[in-house]
Amino acid sequence: MIIDAHGHYTTAPPQLEEWRNRQIAAIGDPANAPRPEDLVISDDKIRESIETNQLRLMDERGSDLTVFSPRASFMAHHIGDYAVSETWSRICNDLCHRVATLFPDRFAMGAMLPQSPGVDPATVIPELRRAVEELGAVVVNLNPDPSGGHWDSPPITDTQWYPIYEVLSELGVPAMVHVSTSCNAAFHTTGAHYLNADTTAFMQLVQGDLFADFPDLRLIIPHGGGAAPYHWGRFRGLADMMKKPDHVEALLRNVFFDTCVYHQPGIDLLTSVIPSESILFASEMIGAVRGIDSRTGHFFDDTKRYVDATPNLTDEQRTAVYEANVRRAYPRLDATLTARGR
Amino acid sequence: MIIDAHGHYTTAPPQLEEWRNRQIAAIGDPANAPRPEDLVISDDKIRESIETNQLRLMDERGSDLTVFSPRASFMAHHIGDYAVSETWSRICNDLCHRVATLFPDRFAMGAMLPQSPGVDPATVIPELRRAVEELGAVVVNLNPDPSGGHWDSPPITDTQWYPIYEVLSELGVPAMVHVSTSCNAAFHTTGAHYLNADTTAFMQLVQGDLFADFPDLRLIIPHGGGAAPYHWGRFRGLADMMKKPDHVEALLRNVFFDTCVYHQPGIDLLTSVIPSESILFASEMIGAVRGIDSRTGHFFDDTKRYVDATPNLTDEQRTAVYEANVRRAYPRLDATLTARGR
Repeated sequence: MIIDAHGHYTTAPPQLEEWRNRQIAAIGDPANAPRPEDLVISDDKIRESIETNQLRLMDERGSDLTVFSPRASFMAHHIGDYAVSETWSRICNDLCHRVATLFPDRFAMGAMLPQSPGVDPATVIPELRRAVEELGAVVVNLNPDPSGGHWDSPPITDTQWYPIYEVLSELGVPAMVHVSTSCNAAFHTTGAHYLNADTTAFMQLVQGDLFADFPDLRLIIPHGGGAAPYHWGRFRGLADMMKKPDHVEALLRNVFFDTCVYHQPGIDLLTSVIPSESILFASEMIGAVRGIDSRTGHFFDDTKRYVDATPNLTDEQRTAVYEANVRRAYPRLDATLTARGR
Repeated sequence: MIIDAHGHYTTAPPQLEEWRNRQIAAIGDPANAPRPEDLVISDDKIRESIETNQLRLMDERGSDLTVFSPRASFMAHHIGDYAVSETWSRICNDLCHRVATLFPDRFAMGAMLPQSPGVDPATVIPELRRAVEELGAVVVNLNPDPSGGHWDSPPITDTQWYPIYEVLSELGVPAMVHVSTSCNAAFHTTGAHYLNADTTAFMQLVQGDLFADFPDLRLIIPHGGGAAPYHWGRFRGLADMMKKPDHVEALLRNVFFDTCVYHQPGIDLLTSVIPSESILFASEMIGAVRGIDSRTGHFFDDTKRYVDATPNLTDEQRTAVYEANVRRAYPRLDATLTARGR
């Protein structure tokens, strides 16, 4: 079984964006805000948006199931206040729940959280619980920088974030550390901000000791861990200078990197540096990079080709990257699949 | 000949830091500010600080010459105003000039610039000209984020930066894009901010078209280009989506990556992805990572070992990474060496 651990609903029907634009236009003008029930998208439209896109490519590329959360760049936690983010999160999570309900064998739900800059992280907990307990989310996307590129939140190891980790630990749900759109002109969203966030979050974990307090918490650092594997010697050396030389590799008991790295040498580096147990197959398909690589004739984001081709994984390790590691990182997904005899 | 393209005076005598601390303490209290002439460091003290540190390691590791600029983390452009940065830059540049004068066969000078957050970049030009024309600097370090982690400057492709590029082009001097200390708690200085800045600057170049306006300008992105080579497919794919599919590789006519990547798999990735003509040997020794890798028994920052060992370079390419590429990137260094018959 091949599980793609990182997908987003980037192809939602256009009514979603239209509703969001109306919501944004009405910020500061609540009388004109659209109501959640104004957004009407039929099951058929959802089916079509999936069947012609992600499902088609999953079949072409040979993956069985995708963990599917709201479009990352659309989370845009920096827009509006907590109420705006809460309403928007509920709508986006409901849509992903409908995808997973319509295609129960092919999609499992991931959730976004109603974060908002400067607002106590604990405010997201009701929606976190709803997404997991009522909608069936198996992972949540946690934005370490809800400001969208101004980075004015404390490190993810700060106790301000602990209420979220307590609930995640209780529920057996991991978090993918994933920023959203950059509203800082210095940072291109998918070419700089995403990768920087991955690197930044990993280094925060190197500095801190989060998993001493939350031994069962699991975090996924997407996009191949940002710059971390490429600079693994730097991170090991920095930890050594902090008098905790084994800390970087100890983190990999709780931290996973995904395979959203869009060329063969990158996947070869990832699989040569990071123990295979801490690698999750993922493609984030129809995401940041949607074209075909003229050098290979294949889509940049068809990461299964790179994972299949890398000489650094044994067949057993490759199988684990595709399935067992994902099931270990996402225990609720494992439980659901097991209950269905998969 | 083996030229280390990226070194900093991290081992300056303690009087330098004491002077800086007095300068910082007197911000807003100019009557108590130390005068530049209060800093007295003898030639012998400078010799000792070099001979027992960088020069010793250069001899042990087998490099001939280091391009040597003020300590990057000490630039701290976010501290004080323009006048504070100007005085500090002159002091630090003068010291590097003295090192290069005391060891003319082993060190060539690089310069810092008196940047200051929110101040017109053109204000650095007098010190830039002094450093190059009077002190002999062959490269300057350009900080794309003088705020120290708040990233409130425009992208390096913005016309606000053009006055600097005009002078660099006129003088035949490249810039190394190098941030300084992070004063943002989210970003560890050497584990996140440095790498993020490299990635961010490279993506800004992908978005823009800077070298159409400055065809002779050369930029060095240090630390192996941040995350860029590891995610080379992502950058190529993003450029493709911007309808300029060849832009990323075209940038390498003007952009160089250095080899400050502190483990073998990282150097192997760099040399397998980036054409060797765009790679400069560098170690940033006695810098961010100063310890010995327990796996290899050698210093993490002894990057010559990785460059020597990588199977991805022919002997000719390796020789060019060590010398010819650096001389091409730093034309004034080349001219000086040529004039000396080297």
